[in-house]
Amino acid sequence: MEKIYLDNASTTMISAEVLNAMMPVLTDNYGNSSSVHSFGRATASLVDNSRDIIAQSINAKSNEIYFTSSGSEANTWAIVGIAMANSNKGNHIITTKIEHESVLGACRYLEQNGFNVTYLDVDKNGFVVFTELLKAIKPSTILISIMSANNELGTIQNLKAIAYTAHEKGIIFHTDAVQLYGNMEIDVDDLKIDALTISAHKIYGPKGVGALYVSNKVKIDPIIFGGNQERGKRGGTLNTPAIVGFGKASEIAYRDIKANKHKLRLLSEYFTSKLTTEIENVVINAPVKQKVPQIISATFTGVDGESLLTKLDLMGVAVSTGSACTSNSLTVSHVLQAIGLKNDDARSTIRFSLSKHNSYEQLDEAIAIIAKAVEELRSFSSTYGMKTRKRKGDK
Amino acid sequence: MEKIYLDNASTTMISAEVLNAMMPVLTDNYGNSSSVHSFGRATASLVDNSRDIIAQSINAKSNEIYFTSSGSEANTWAIVGIAMANSNKGNHIITTKIEHESVLGACRYLEQNGFNVTYLDVDKNGFVVFTELLKAIKPSTILISIMSANNELGTIQNLKAIAYTAHEKGIIFHTDAVQLYGNMEIDVDDLKIDALTISAHKIYGPKGVGALYVSNKVKIDPIIFGGNQERGKRGGTLNTPAIVGFGKASEIAYRDIKANKHKLRLLSEYFTSKLTTEIENVVINAPVKQKVPQIISATFTGVDGESLLTKLDLMGVAVSTGSACTSNSLTVSHVLQAIGLKNDDARSTIRFSLSKHNSYEQLDEAIAIIAKAVEELRSFSSTYGMKTRKRKGDK
Repeated sequence: MEKIYLDNASTTMISAEVLNAMMPVLTDNYGNSSSVHSFGRATASLVDNSRDIIAQSINAKSNEIYFTSSGSEANTWAIVGIAMANSNKGNHIITTKIEHESVLGACRYLEQNGFNVTYLDVDKNGFVVFTELLKAIKPSTILISIMSANNELGTIQNLKAIAYTAHEKGIIFHTDAVQLYGNMEIDVDDLKIDALTISAHKIYGPKGVGALYVSNKVKIDPIIFGGNQERGKRGGTLNTPAIVGFGKASEIAYRDIKANKHKLRLLSEYFTSKLTTEIENVVINAPVKQKVPQIISATFTGVDGESLLTKLDLMGVAVSTGSACTSNSLTVSHVLQAIGLKNDDARSTIRFSLSKHNSYEQLDEAIAIIAKAVEELRSFSSTYGMKTRKRKGDK
Repeated sequence: MEKIYLDNASTTMISAEVLNAMMPVLTDNYGNSSSVHSFGRATASLVDNSRDIIAQSINAKSNEIYFTSSGSEANTWAIVGIAMANSNKGNHIITTKIEHESVLGACRYLEQNGFNVTYLDVDKNGFVVFTELLKAIKPSTILISIMSANNELGTIQNLKAIAYTAHEKGIIFHTDAVQLYGNMEIDVDDLKIDALTISAHKIYGPKGVGALYVSNKVKIDPIIFGGNQERGKRGGTLNTPAIVGFGKASEIAYRDIKANKHKLRLLSEYFTSKLTTEIENVVINAPVKQKVPQIISATFTGVDGESLLTKLDLMGVAVSTGSACTSNSLTVSHVLQAIGLKNDDARSTIRFSLSKHNSYEQLDEAIAIIAKAVEELRSFSSTYGMKTRKRKGDK
């Protein structure tokens, strides 16, 4: 049986079109894009082309796009680099409790180095509460970093409102758009976003490349030193095959975005509906609307998430319990805690993330397997029946 | 005419064996190596294999190898991460004036953040003067970072003597081995090296991946945050295709090292000898021995290096005037300044860097082209004749 991969928020398969674009750069076009000779210039022009495509995809200027090795590097750089370069204006940063670990890690690092950070609570659907944001802003606030779409829930924040509020107070606004980019339209000029993180391998591009958009109006210090690459802001020989692949992946994502959005929304509705109707006691942890459709967070009451993941894997369905980045950790997801899930429920939660390549037949098959696995795990659980009985009794 | 690429210290072509190893990871094995399911575990085992190969190649333990996106990232991380983690012991760092820009940039960053840095002079061949090193050591010295082989000259430092001296005083020793690795044997245990930077794309591996070896005895703080990747020390989804390619490139480099060392030494001697005998007024800027043979720095008196590079490029020979990383800069090479070259001579210098794939026929052809280009440029130079006449008159 063909395995069913429902973990596309962790990483996606490189599309054939993307790989075809990369192949010449993996073979003949091997020059260092910083070299002056023809080998270098040939590669540099391919990098320029990718930079143009990516800039256009978010309505930025090409010289506002900086290639990095990953979304995590771009997030770390945005937080640390902007804070350091603007520390003369203040030392306070606002973020949320549901950010990616790269943002949270960078914030903790800054806290050890003289900065203060406010970690905003979110509501039960993962939304920032606007009045809380307003209350958190101080005269010393220099940066607000709030993710575009959450990687465990899919919840999309009101970016425009947040960005406008930040700008009214002269505060820089960064957003981690790794899960939004390529799946929804983003216009940094219209939304007034100052800095934005994206990554190739979430949109059928290669691993090893991300990018940070930084408005030319915003100061940022480097965190990786080296030569004159990326206009002196980020050292290291450019990963040219991956950058070319990123450009192609971006081009495809926005070329096909209407069709893919439509397809993913239908697939997601179909999957969510079957999940909640064909299996009892499943709770979806996210808003119905204002979310990226491909991410579906589901709590299977009375089922240990890790056991379910392992069982599903053996039965041919790949899912995750949360972010892949922290999948080896035994702690409960900080995102699920932030939306108010009890530890038991957080530990019973699985993230499904769909792909434009999924078929309805695959989802049918996956649902049947999930139903079987959940039933088996619940039948072994001494507490499941009691719990559900209790819950029913409560009504 | 086939172009002749003599810029292998900037970057090399991926070997077919390496690309073959990468292809399955660019297609079917696309799982995120942090994911728990079978897609993730399959990729994780390939990463483990690469880590083992690279660890063995320098006689380190596998859990002392951390993958990065480049040599520049690894250098920045080593300097900043070790300094930050050990700042309780002191705030003084020793390096040299001929380091790669990533090391120098990281040191300048630390200087802005409460650290003191001593930049050692080198002699006319690029060697650290041992008595100068001893004089520079203070009770507050926590880190010495001195490159293994210089990227413009090829000069190999006395690593063992430096490392032993560092350890006698309780100082951590890091070395940027990007130009040495894969070309010479390195035993970090025997040499007592605490941290060492390497890169794949200099040894016929892919761009986008480097590694930092850090002894388990040494503390280092992260500079890129994220999940639990690389044992919590370096965030970001692993660039698995490139990591697999790095492992294969390393395996090939050390499998064939005796033959390649022999071949490159002969090619280098042949090229250097023809360069200095068939063209007048050429000076080689490096020691004859104790250098990596593939790098040859040559000063063509009275010739503008940039013009020569451009002319050679048009005539089909790719070379550089120094590090590719700074090739777009108009400043004179800091390395050539450090070995005492006057600005005029530094501006007349070309770096040739050979490959194991070069043939004697290619080198003959290159020499003929270089001779022609140099002659033409000198014939247009109003000062060349005067200069050489003056020099001759001085004798």
